Amino acid sequence: MQKFSSSTASLSPEYGIEIGRWTQYSGTDYLPFGAMWCVIPPNSSSQPDQHPEIELAVVVEGDADFDVAGRREHAPAGSAILLGSEEGHVVHNRSADDRLVLLSMYWLPEGARDAG
Amino acid sequence: MQKFSSSTASLSPEYGIEIGRWTQYSGTDYLPFGAMWCVIPPNSSSQPDQHPEIELAVVVEGDADFDVAGRREHAPAGSAILLGSEEGHVVHNRSADDRLVLLSMYWLPEGARDAG
Repeated sequence: MQKFSSSTASLSPEYGIEIGRWTQYSGTDYLPFGAMWCVIPPNSSSQPDQHPEIELAVVVEGDADFDVAGRREHAPAGSAILLGSEEGHVVHNRSADDRLVLLSMYWLPEGARDAG
Repeated sequence: MQKFSSSTASLSPEYGIEIGRWTQYSGTDYLPFGAMWCVIPPNSSSQPDQHPEIELAVVVEGDADFDVAGRREHAPAGSAILLGSEEGHVVHNRSADDRLVLLSMYWLPEGARDAG
């Protein structure tokens, strides 16, 4: 058993938010996806992002708004957003007081198909 | 963009708790892991579970205690527990008032290796 915590993770600024890549944890190389904590301070947004990897963003704290292709989706804690390959996205934290924390997992579509 | 929510998912009793398998969502076949919401009511525990799949349990609401091989790990919302293949585990929700919600993801070690 290993425990990973967004509140004790080492974070660094990337994409206009704070990122805690799971490569900081030993023993996670064999996960079938990359993973990172994303911490978005109150009244902040991520920079626009777009990448070939499919992404599953799980909201573990706070309240997110995702903008994708002109569509806005509200995602409170306990929900998850699945983004397709090359789907451009921006994440907003519109709370004035509370931080927003996501666990983002991502993988290349080819890898997913190989894993069958 | 697709959104999945633990609060609107269809749940059914399994392992002594409520389970919402992601097979209920269309378009999730290509994920490189299986996934399910696990909802554990106040003052309840899961039945002991053990399986060949590696499991990553992300706490998205409430407060969990994991028991593995005589060791107890406290996992509040915003933390994640990685369980090895065949590592027996029990999850407790010791709150008298609040439900506990996990997103559990699982995959066979072989699949993970194939996915490289």
